Amino acid sequence: MALLLNCDLGESFGSWKMGMDEAVMPHIDQANIACGFHGGDPLVINKTLTLAKQHEVTVGAHPSYPDLVGFGRRSMNCSGDEIKAFITYQISALDGMARSQGLELAYAKPHGALYNDMMAKDAVRHAIMDAMAAYHRPIRLMLQATPNADLHREEAANRGLKLYFEAFADRCYDDDGRLLARSKPGAVHTREKMLAQVKQLNDEGTITTVSGHTLNLQADTLCVHGDNMEGVQAIEAIRELITA
Amino acid sequence: MALLLNCDLGESFGSWKMGMDEAVMPHIDQANIACGFHGGDPLVINKTLTLAKQHEVTVGAHPSYPDLVGFGRRSMNCSGDEIKAFITYQISALDGMARSQGLELAYAKPHGALYNDMMAKDAVRHAIMDAMAAYHRPIRLMLQATPNADLHREEAANRGLKLYFEAFADRCYDDDGRLLARSKPGAVHTREKMLAQVKQLNDEGTITTVSGHTLNLQADTLCVHGDNMEGVQAIEAIRELITA
Amino acid sequence: MALLLNCDLGESFGSWKMGMDEAVMPHIDQANIACGFHGGDPLVINKTLTLAKQHEVTVGAHPSYPDLVGFGRRSMNCSGDEIKAFITYQISALDGMARSQGLELAYAKPHGALYNDMMAKDAVRHAIMDAMAAYHRPIRLMLQATPNADLHREEAANRGLKLYFEAFADRCYDDDGRLLARSKPGAVHTREKMLAQVKQLNDEGTITTVSGHTLNLQADTLCVHGDNMEGVQAIEAIRELITA
Amino acid sequence: MALLLNCDLGESFGSWKMGMDEAVMPHIDQANIACGFHGGDPLVINKTLTLAKQHEVTVGAHPSYPDLVGFGRRSMNCSGDEIKAFITYQISALDGMARSQGLELAYAKPHGALYNDMMAKDAVRHAIMDAMAAYHRPIRLMLQATPNADLHREEAANRGLKLYFEAFADRCYDDDGRLLARSKPGAVHTREKMLAQVKQLNDEGTITTVSGHTLNLQADTLCVHGDNMEGVQAIEAIRELITA
Repeated sequence: MALLLNCDLGESFGSWKMGMDEAVMPHIDQANIACGFHGGDPLVINKTLTLAKQHEVTVGAHPSYPDLVGFGRRSMNCSGDEIKAFITYQISALDGMARSQGLELAYAKPHGALYNDMMAKDAVRHAIMDAMAAYHRPIRLMLQATPNADLHREEAANRGLKLYFEAFADRCYDDDGRLLARSKPGAVHTREKMLAQVKQLNDEGTITTVSGHTLNLQADTLCVHGDNMEGVQAIEAIRELITA
Repeated sequence: MALLLNCDLGESFGSWKMGMDEAVMPHIDQANIACGFHGGDPLVINKTLTLAKQHEVTVGAHPSYPDLVGFGRRSMNCSGDEIKAFITYQISALDGMARSQGLELAYAKPHGALYNDMMAKDAVRHAIMDAMAAYHRPIRLMLQATPNADLHREEAANRGLKLYFEAFADRCYDDDGRLLARSKPGAVHTREKMLAQVKQLNDEGTITTVSGHTLNLQADTLCVHGDNMEGVQAIEAIRELITA
Repeated sequence: MALLLNCDLGESFGSWKMGMDEAVMPHIDQANIACGFHGGDPLVINKTLTLAKQHEVTVGAHPSYPDLVGFGRRSMNCSGDEIKAFITYQISALDGMARSQGLELAYAKPHGALYNDMMAKDAVRHAIMDAMAAYHRPIRLMLQATPNADLHREEAANRGLKLYFEAFADRCYDDDGRLLARSKPGAVHTREKMLAQVKQLNDEGTITTVSGHTLNLQADTLCVHGDNMEGVQAIEAIRELITA
Repeated sequence: MALLLNCDLGESFGSWKMGMDEAVMPHIDQANIACGFHGGDPLVINKTLTLAKQHEVTVGAHPSYPDLVGFGRRSMNCSGDEIKAFITYQISALDGMARSQGLELAYAKPHGALYNDMMAKDAVRHAIMDAMAAYHRPIRLMLQATPNADLHREEAANRGLKLYFEAFADRCYDDDGRLLARSKPGAVHTREKMLAQVKQLNDEGTITTVSGHTLNLQADTLCVHGDNMEGVQAIEAIRELITA
């Protein structure tokens, strides 16, 4: 089964524009839509949902720590109850707005620092999973495909929660199957290497690590970026390659 | 049919407490729950919903202009699209959180300046009605019972929207069936007059105006206030009187 | 004396960029810097001040209603005390940050809906003037040059406050010396007409109104816009014309 | 020289009241005034300054991470530049508002999680010190008296910055001169022990640790709490004891 493409969208806020949503939407499968806590506002959310509907793109919530000025990129030391509450709030807001346009929210992918904390800290991940499992209808959680995928599957199964695992197109992986730190040389692929990684991942379900090893990486979806024209062109190239 | 009692609740925010929600909840029928735009935050909303569930109180959303520091009491010159979007966002957030606790959001009552603008400006009221009519499941709009009730019923019926009309227990009405301005003498009833007005409204569906006339006022629900101990005691007295 | 050029700058917020500040700053005399209430955040303010210093541009505060998502463009029904307090807060924040970079805040120009309300409502203008007159050191208020300039001068003089009057380069004036409503044909000048208006205003202190009359318009400074490349080019042309 | 008493004040926000500022102000020497990032808004700041002036209390800024809903109690992973910018912004806002009432801002004491991070992390403390040292006029930094006081004095001296060291009245200290964790038995003193600790600290400059040792603790000021009537009564008792 072909990899899906997911992209963060709807991250404009009020008069401030961000991202090339109109150019990206035709080429992706899943739109991670900001919920108002790091970007997005009710008007932006509505427009993004309309755009997703027009291109038959599956919609997901992209919840964040409450940090507009920091764009959700700064880890905040929140309690489990705080995380559960703001996850439910953000998912609910997106879900109701989506359904009012005849769409169904299918999943949630935490944003920025919340995503990183979810992958790094059990307590954060469990709070997110608890909130999503308690939601009144099933919605999948999207998280990173890592060597801990089995643990994450078990944690999710215990809660009756389904997952999407995502891989990164443009990031080099280390021999443990984790992303090479951005500070390291070769951490971000050239376009050529990026496309090779996507092809290998899509066709064989493996990646070639920084030291040349081949590693299995089971991913359902690929994270792509639509911040600028270069990103949009990369998305188009990836779409073509996967569809071929 | 007896009048219902509705009260604004869940207006605490973060570390700031407001209102005597625990004391009020056992005595009311409908809880207007702040949605985070003038008060309330995801944790407060969750706790308020839990309290409502415990006392089998119907829950409604209490959406507002986005104005935390002004507590939603300052009119903001928003476009119809802005109003529609933030109404849907706030209702959706409450609805999803309610359903995740096994509750059903039943209605929405705009807060503060948004409520006043809804009653005074057609464009604001129509935007609110449009947003609620477009919501993916039926939710009633609560607004003030005034001489324009027929017009409001027609506007709602045209959109397939149902209404709750509310009356005020402690406010004197003028001969036109509108609230006497707070600046006028006698605008706010003594406790004795307040209870008399409630009894008359409940038993006969009428009020006695400032100049002594008797006026029909069809109301489904009565707005009560739980800000302090005096308010709570008034609610208890009203509840006793209506139940008797 | 030649007209000064003033421009709104520092309106980025967090990760969201707005305006072409680097391209604009070399060509203007006065930078109206957002204070965090409609745009700008402490980091953005610091960077904008540094840029102004580098180009020896006079810095002013650009205070706003507290409305980030609405970019300060929605009138809010604030009390005089609220306006006075948030004006002082915003001016103070800018002033302290400016002085810590060796700059002196010279003036304040209200933003967006607050600017419009200042021109249209005495109570708003007086609150702003009161706040500025009470500031611990003299700072000028920038407002629009209109037929009411004498009244505004008198109001300011009574408070010991000095003013800057500004005119608009690209807007057509009606016979009363007010801006023609944007909805009217010819309300926004072509580039050619804009430059002609600037030249006439600079050389003769007059404008030609929509119906062809010549009107005196005493202005100290000209409002220019740096939102996009077109705006920047217009600023360069205006600068050249005025300097010639 | 007698210990000064400092207290967090001005932490109300909009319609939400917090603290017993009117009852506390007559008994303290230094008011740590919230700057709008965790509490306080321009109106609240103005009122708190007026109250301080009336009781001749020295005013300080109480800057925070930007986190209203979390009341500044959640550590945020901010960069040094972010911290420097928001410290300068908050100090500037308070300073300008104070001077406009004829007061002089004398110091700043970081709030909540920012205070804890300042004591625990060199990078946070250095960013705060850098911002304060770069301020256009000298303002002291208030921080906790700990065994690292000499290091902190040196860091401050290198920047030309002066300090206030504060001790806690109601908290038990461990043998290292640090606060006993709140989770430990005896971490918070009974009223009797609290008064004994204050007396010993004031008269002899020492404290008795949890295990009974006597330790020098050089403090300029004592942190007291005015959240409720019990706190206010404790402040009155401490004031009486110190003045005696």
